[in-house]
Amino acid sequence: MHKRRLIKPDGRALILYGREPIAGDVEAPAPPNRTPPAPHLRWHPLRGEWVAYATHRQDRTFLPPAEYDPLAPTRDPAHPTEVPGTAWDVAVFDNRFPTFTTVAPEAPDSIVATRPATGAAEVVVFTPARDGALGALPLWHVELLVDVWSDRYCELGARPDVQYVMPFENRGVEVGVTLHHPHGQIYAYPFVPPVAARELEQQQHHLATHGRGLLEDLIAAELRDGRRVVYVDDDALAFVPVCARWAYELWVAPRRAAPSLAALDGGQRHAFANALKTALMLLDGVWQRPMPYVLVLHQAPTDDAPHPEAHVHAEIYPAYRMPGRLKYLAGSELGGGVFTADTLPEDTAVTLRTAARQAERSA
Amino acid sequence: MHKRRLIKPDGRALILYGREPIAGDVEAPAPPNRTPPAPHLRWHPLRGEWVAYATHRQDRTFLPPAEYDPLAPTRDPAHPTEVPGTAWDVAVFDNRFPTFTTVAPEAPDSIVATRPATGAAEVVVFTPARDGALGALPLWHVELLVDVWSDRYCELGARPDVQYVMPFENRGVEVGVTLHHPHGQIYAYPFVPPVAARELEQQQHHLATHGRGLLEDLIAAELRDGRRVVYVDDDALAFVPVCARWAYELWVAPRRAAPSLAALDGGQRHAFANALKTALMLLDGVWQRPMPYVLVLHQAPTDDAPHPEAHVHAEIYPAYRMPGRLKYLAGSELGGGVFTADTLPEDTAVTLRTAARQAERSA
Repeated sequence: MHKRRLIKPDGRALILYGREPIAGDVEAPAPPNRTPPAPHLRWHPLRGEWVAYATHRQDRTFLPPAEYDPLAPTRDPAHPTEVPGTAWDVAVFDNRFPTFTTVAPEAPDSIVATRPATGAAEVVVFTPARDGALGALPLWHVELLVDVWSDRYCELGARPDVQYVMPFENRGVEVGVTLHHPHGQIYAYPFVPPVAARELEQQQHHLATHGRGLLEDLIAAELRDGRRVVYVDDDALAFVPVCARWAYELWVAPRRAAPSLAALDGGQRHAFANALKTALMLLDGVWQRPMPYVLVLHQAPTDDAPHPEAHVHAEIYPAYRMPGRLKYLAGSELGGGVFTADTLPEDTAVTLRTAARQAERSA
Repeated sequence: MHKRRLIKPDGRALILYGREPIAGDVEAPAPPNRTPPAPHLRWHPLRGEWVAYATHRQDRTFLPPAEYDPLAPTRDPAHPTEVPGTAWDVAVFDNRFPTFTTVAPEAPDSIVATRPATGAAEVVVFTPARDGALGALPLWHVELLVDVWSDRYCELGARPDVQYVMPFENRGVEVGVTLHHPHGQIYAYPFVPPVAARELEQQQHHLATHGRGLLEDLIAAELRDGRRVVYVDDDALAFVPVCARWAYELWVAPRRAAPSLAALDGGQRHAFANALKTALMLLDGVWQRPMPYVLVLHQAPTDDAPHPEAHVHAEIYPAYRMPGRLKYLAGSELGGGVFTADTLPEDTAVTLRTAARQAERSA
């Protein structure tokens, strides 16, 4: 992997990644007229969690006309996008409308605790091509993205103000995506987010009690059971977890515990990329149309503590529970935190595997 | 309040509530052809929470044609709805497609812990009238509903298998509502849901540390600050919490701590009903159109422990952050549990109060 770090005219970072070396004379473009971000955090005393306020985001780009794609390579320097025209395979830059930022202003005083929203909010452009999808990229390209996620984990995680690095992808208008060019994001939080904290607590408890990793044990049980596994090789697998909260939820993981993508060797990264690509293609195969989803990478915090309990994996939450019927989060989910599922993981796994076989036959 | 308990032909309970006595000769109707429910719970080991599976729900009534309203009083006994034609003001019945049920079948064995989904899932028909809204009901009717919620809390909470009673309302197609007749639901869980558990933990800690209630202290601070309070009288208030996660989020609470609606006296219930009605009318006034929302009542668990830390209140989560722009839960919210807000609670509170003043002027 080749990497080149640049600074945009407005001060934001741009990092280009490529299978081939990046040209030396490239300049970092930026659309004009950026409002300086001023996010801050407030403590939610009842839930015991931080809430981020970023009012400059209210006016962010919202489904722009098809002819304007800020994530496409700049063709005309008079009309700069966020990324240069020069050859690159994956580009990462500081979000123009960040929720967390390297230099955050003082937080206003309030009746609850407040703090600056220091951290990072990066955009990850998966490919220069505006059409397409993460799962449809060639395997080498998905592998390169895994390397990029790993690089961002190390670089952002090394910052003393960053406690947790979370790459994710929101895909589809159904989950609120405002730009259709294939891309994801990375949030670098100044704290361990509540969901991650809860999961690590469960994993720590399991490790202390059984001397084995919680996800490793679950994966072993899933493989013995077999009904919900949609892809497996020697190093990685994809499965509908037995406790899926979303109808077509999929988890992608290395079979052996590792705290982060950065801790995987080349073969394991290759296997993880392959399992991830397979999972995403299966989702698009269910109804032969792009499945909207939220994809989140779970890794060890980048605080100073060791995390032998952590086991890197991706969780994918598809938005539909039936063709044309979204899963809504309502009273039980939002108010109680209790998910209600209309489908059994065993059944949706069969649907996913059937879609895969049909795709093979018609290929 | 008058109350009359009936049993439907399919064995489900129907309870009619009225300001006037309920007629003695009323029969409980039920639409035909009900699939017996068979929900079960599975343990999510990573999140440490229960997930409910209710596959009979996949085919539940979905935006039926306008001429069929299963929550309207039965006019023709040959075409029964869920509620009788006889006079009542609020009706409660066991959900035809329950996620939790009084008699649940054995849960299937699995690679994670499972258990029967015992508990209750009730539908609360707010009014016999099919058009209208909770906030638009006369004050006496909202007060009656508060009494009904209180009665359900006591009756369901007295069951040894019920640990937590959660009344809620999902309103609007934007939050997945399938029936437009004004109605809410009550889930009676066989465990304390994770969100409630987390909040009680924070409240216990505050009470132990400061000797005062967490929400009481927050309410006192909100009243001193004043900027986010949209309604207040001697006994209750409605406010945009300083830590709002949704743009127009509103909390409605009695000013003095009480573990549940059942613990409020008549005057406090009246004040709570009035504050709730005011809050809901303000929401509909923001853009002069019905605001979709999720409303959830937070009360003390009905386990055997005392809960001096609990402070009953309603939290209302409106779906829109701007006219026509929904707040989507995506990577940060679903993957990390970190909400990102585009608006400041101080600003949305001004909008809510301005809408109220405009409504007063035009009235």
